[in-house]
Amino acid sequence: MTAKRNKQPILPKINDPADVRAVPEEDLALLAGEIREELVHAVSKTGGHLGPNLGVVELTIALHRAFNSPADKILFDVSHQGYVHKMLTGRRGQIDSIRQHGGLNGFLLRTESEHDCYGAGHAGTALSAGLGMAAARDLRGSDEHVVVVAGDAAFTCGVSFEALNNVAETTRRFIVVLNDNEWSISRNVGAIATYLNQIRANPSYAHLHEQVAKFIRSVGGQSALHLAHKVESGMKHILLPSVIFEDLGFRYYGPIDGHDTALLTRTFEFLKTQNEPVILHILTTKGKGYAPALQQPDKFHGLGKFKPDTGETEPSAGPTYSQIFGTKLSDFADHNNRIVAITAAMAGGTGLSTFEKRHPDRYHDVGIAEEHAALFACGLATQGFKPFLTIYSTFMQRAYDMIIHDIALQNLNVALCMDRAGLSGDDGPTHHGLFDIGYLRHIPGIVFMQPKDEEEFTDMLWTMANYHRGPIAIRYPRGAGTGAVPKEHPQILEIGQSEVLRHGRRVLLIGLGNMVEMAEQTADLLAARGIDAAVVNARWIKPLDRQTIEFFARAAEVVCTFEDHVLHNGFGCAVIEALADARITTPVVRIGWPDEFIEHGSVPVLRAQHGITAEAAVEKILAELHMEAAPKTTSAA
Amino acid sequence: MTAKRNKQPILPKINDPADVRAVPEEDLALLAGEIREELVHAVSKTGGHLGPNLGVVELTIALHRAFNSPADKILFDVSHQGYVHKMLTGRRGQIDSIRQHGGLNGFLLRTESEHDCYGAGHAGTALSAGLGMAAARDLRGSDEHVVVVAGDAAFTCGVSFEALNNVAETTRRFIVVLNDNEWSISRNVGAIATYLNQIRANPSYAHLHEQVAKFIRSVGGQSALHLAHKVESGMKHILLPSVIFEDLGFRYYGPIDGHDTALLTRTFEFLKTQNEPVILHILTTKGKGYAPALQQPDKFHGLGKFKPDTGETEPSAGPTYSQIFGTKLSDFADHNNRIVAITAAMAGGTGLSTFEKRHPDRYHDVGIAEEHAALFACGLATQGFKPFLTIYSTFMQRAYDMIIHDIALQNLNVALCMDRAGLSGDDGPTHHGLFDIGYLRHIPGIVFMQPKDEEEFTDMLWTMANYHRGPIAIRYPRGAGTGAVPKEHPQILEIGQSEVLRHGRRVLLIGLGNMVEMAEQTADLLAARGIDAAVVNARWIKPLDRQTIEFFARAAEVVCTFEDHVLHNGFGCAVIEALADARITTPVVRIGWPDEFIEHGSVPVLRAQHGITAEAAVEKILAELHMEAAPKTTSAA
Repeated sequence: MTAKRNKQPILPKINDPADVRAVPEEDLALLAGEIREELVHAVSKTGGHLGPNLGVVELTIALHRAFNSPADKILFDVSHQGYVHKMLTGRRGQIDSIRQHGGLNGFLLRTESEHDCYGAGHAGTALSAGLGMAAARDLRGSDEHVVVVAGDAAFTCGVSFEALNNVAETTRRFIVVLNDNEWSISRNVGAIATYLNQIRANPSYAHLHEQVAKFIRSVGGQSALHLAHKVESGMKHILLPSVIFEDLGFRYYGPIDGHDTALLTRTFEFLKTQNEPVILHILTTKGKGYAPALQQPDKFHGLGKFKPDTGETEPSAGPTYSQIFGTKLSDFADHNNRIVAITAAMAGGTGLSTFEKRHPDRYHDVGIAEEHAALFACGLATQGFKPFLTIYSTFMQRAYDMIIHDIALQNLNVALCMDRAGLSGDDGPTHHGLFDIGYLRHIPGIVFMQPKDEEEFTDMLWTMANYHRGPIAIRYPRGAGTGAVPKEHPQILEIGQSEVLRHGRRVLLIGLGNMVEMAEQTADLLAARGIDAAVVNARWIKPLDRQTIEFFARAAEVVCTFEDHVLHNGFGCAVIEALADARITTPVVRIGWPDEFIEHGSVPVLRAQHGITAEAAVEKILAELHMEAAPKTTSAA
Repeated sequence: MTAKRNKQPILPKINDPADVRAVPEEDLALLAGEIREELVHAVSKTGGHLGPNLGVVELTIALHRAFNSPADKILFDVSHQGYVHKMLTGRRGQIDSIRQHGGLNGFLLRTESEHDCYGAGHAGTALSAGLGMAAARDLRGSDEHVVVVAGDAAFTCGVSFEALNNVAETTRRFIVVLNDNEWSISRNVGAIATYLNQIRANPSYAHLHEQVAKFIRSVGGQSALHLAHKVESGMKHILLPSVIFEDLGFRYYGPIDGHDTALLTRTFEFLKTQNEPVILHILTTKGKGYAPALQQPDKFHGLGKFKPDTGETEPSAGPTYSQIFGTKLSDFADHNNRIVAITAAMAGGTGLSTFEKRHPDRYHDVGIAEEHAALFACGLATQGFKPFLTIYSTFMQRAYDMIIHDIALQNLNVALCMDRAGLSGDDGPTHHGLFDIGYLRHIPGIVFMQPKDEEEFTDMLWTMANYHRGPIAIRYPRGAGTGAVPKEHPQILEIGQSEVLRHGRRVLLIGLGNMVEMAEQTADLLAARGIDAAVVNARWIKPLDRQTIEFFARAAEVVCTFEDHVLHNGFGCAVIEALADARITTPVVRIGWPDEFIEHGSVPVLRAQHGITAEAAVEKILAELHMEAAPKTTSAA
């Protein structure tokens, strides 16, 4: 704690929104400063979305002064910028537990607080959900306000546009705050971004608009209002840069300074009186008040632990899958001019920032627009290019229809690269990539694989780039793997051919991807008990290597599958199906995630909690072998 | 054939686009008339999308006169309006086979013709795919044109907006034709529709725009062009209603008459010379030239066989599932004011037009915007309402991320009603609903069912409406079922409790939904051979009634599952998983669709072709019982 202030700190007295409303206007800047200090302190220990939260301190204070949560509904799009909201709604004491197992979630959660009226994690959902709340209010005839806070990046999502298109027909009372900080995760892209830039670049727009607004309010009276509306309607296209929103049926206000709490509060009070959908455009600075975050907004969007004084983070242990992806795909593209890389606002996260530097003409960041990204890839593929559509597993769900209807049905040569497949850890249930085998395996014609380590990953990418033609998908986990160093000259892997890592008779262990390691540990533990086990690295989810699996399974007394995916419709399910079809009756133990949404926390903690360990596998295998459970041992992991 | 003309018919001489270009301008109206006559004649025998095709006759002629397909790429959004295109690109001789098994597909198909550069069936894909083609062209430095034809309804799809947002950054040469007929399938909805209406209602807009355009072109010279652009840029908000598109980086032209072939052709020739993305807004009339289609545009959007003179269709055999859905949900809503119905531009198809009439305040058609529809439902559900999200199985794929991230993760009380689940028949692979068990079963907390007939359907809807709270999904097929009459007072079905229809020991037949009928036929055929079989109506896909299934399976020598879904990740897969978990080794035969995209055709023909019959089931069951295959018999179906 620094000693900048003369009076008692304010923040410790804030237990709920009523306390926020009680703060005298002259103390608001002080409050904002205290919040920023605590935020930096807490996130330096936990990691998290620091930049976006530093940018919305004043906005969040103003929202809780002008509106009455939980009666009024405040929705945050994505909700990664909800830390300040959590601090002001009774969760300040737990803020240093954010994103830690058992602590606060990094996003809003309906189960966490009555003030979290809508949970999120993916972008672009808040306008539609808020509109549903407004429709509900109008149906029951109550009078609460619905306020949606969305960043400029949310306006690159198609679903936001679908919502905007429906507002005017649905309700007359709906408040949207466009929090414009020029950034999505990387710098924002597309025509809407350009358009917002024009507004920002010309402050006279705002000034002129203010005058019109003042005129409307000052003249007063019904006919004057009517006249003013006519005037504004005729003139707005000169005066206002707001035509997109106005043509969609909103009244547009702004842009105003998003760091002036008093102005924001007064503006909200005015907007509450309006009987039409309104959009308030505010300008904020990501990372506001913390120099390292201002200097490196991309890094501080979301990061791990850091030193609060300097913003320094620990050097990462080794290259992550994402980093290898970016480097290797760039290398391959040096020699293959058909390769194109596509990301949906995740240049850094996916490793494609490397590709952008090395092959800018074949790199496309389309914004948070996964559906478009997939179709854009299809168009390129029809013309002989090989697009690598690189999207986190959980976000690929957005492009699901396109994967079936466009990529697979037309048998197009598109590579689906799913980063963050498996448990994603601290980000929690909105970000785990635990469903992709379930949603992809039944799609006809798709080839689908997962590498056991970084070396195999590179071989697989090479196989995708230079060998296979047609829809092909790969899933790989967050972070680094075993550290296996990629070959200098990657090799082509035969489609549908698994790798036998260890021969053995009594037990067959089949590992998929990052879980091959656990299969090997399990084999070691079994060996220590004199039980010989075969270990197969599955490599291919589809086509499954039925021949190899059947060969070992027929002889074995028990089969055990390992996957970083839910068990329902998962990899083990594919193995069971293959064995059933071959009328092989060897019992199958499946290690994977249960049929529930998995909370946030570190991967080892959550695995242990859900019985996804070599020890748990051994216990289940021994039970099948009618042998006594092992006394507790500890594996290498 | 009527005898309106004096000269030789033109159409028989049209074998490819070059022939279209060779038609003298004075004969174009004649050609259009001949196309319409053949269209009405052909579709009267096959059924299909008549209205949309009658509306684009002149447009399609003009496209093939101004552009050089297949070198130039012409994309049709949805492509249900591609019949005329098929007639002009060498497929006129097969047009009366459209949507028939072995005949032309009802949509564009890349495998059908080199002129079908992109296939579709779902809306909103063409802008993105076309943009990918334009990016490919720019990369390789070729000079073909890319033209995208999209109806006004496509502009209610978020993905179209995502594409528009990316055009200006991606290419300078891109031609979009906005075919505005004021209709999606039902009358179009939302702010964009209102906006386009304003344009249509004010022809002076177009006139003024023409003047600006003329000025730009007549003044000439680089600096004049620069000046003119500045003038236009400053004035466009007064002169032009086109600001949405212009602010997104397009040059807007129109609206012009979409039934004037010569004007369209000349306009395209001009647009080909432009070095910036352009959008041409054309006005057309759905059903043009055929009185019955003009009078009932909704009916003639897509329909079955009809009498060409009058447009009369055969009265449908009995109420369809969709009709029952609309009626029953409306009945339930009379007594339950929490029920809200949501459709995505499918009021007629889903049966919800009935609900709209009876409960207009609780009915929402959001346009072709499935993502928004799902989130809007979530918002309503958080406020205590019970939204019925009613979307065809194949289109539900668009809302996939929202089903996981919003509905299931937040455990919201939303009912997913999937019409057209299973093989949809004539519409083909883009419309079959064969993947929904695959994509839903692994989602935690979801309850999922399928009724065996109309009576059970009503009980299930009642259970959804008045009993279960939380995410719940139902799948039901196109058309009518067995004709079982719903009870006057529907009953609540116990979640996860299957129905034993027939006791038996040697064989267990488990039918899901509409396939229960085939399970019963199979039992009859087995009984005729002295083999007793139990028949279970599964009812629940999730939670699966493991207890009942295990009870019968343990005793049986063979289990056979029946589903109208692909086998991978399907219902039979769930049964296999349950038996494997219970260590029951009874062999399982699975009847369902194979791992490939199924072509179009009638349901009985395709079922027979793919071995989805009671006879095929009997043969496989006998093989498991080591009995000789039956001599060919014929079942009742």
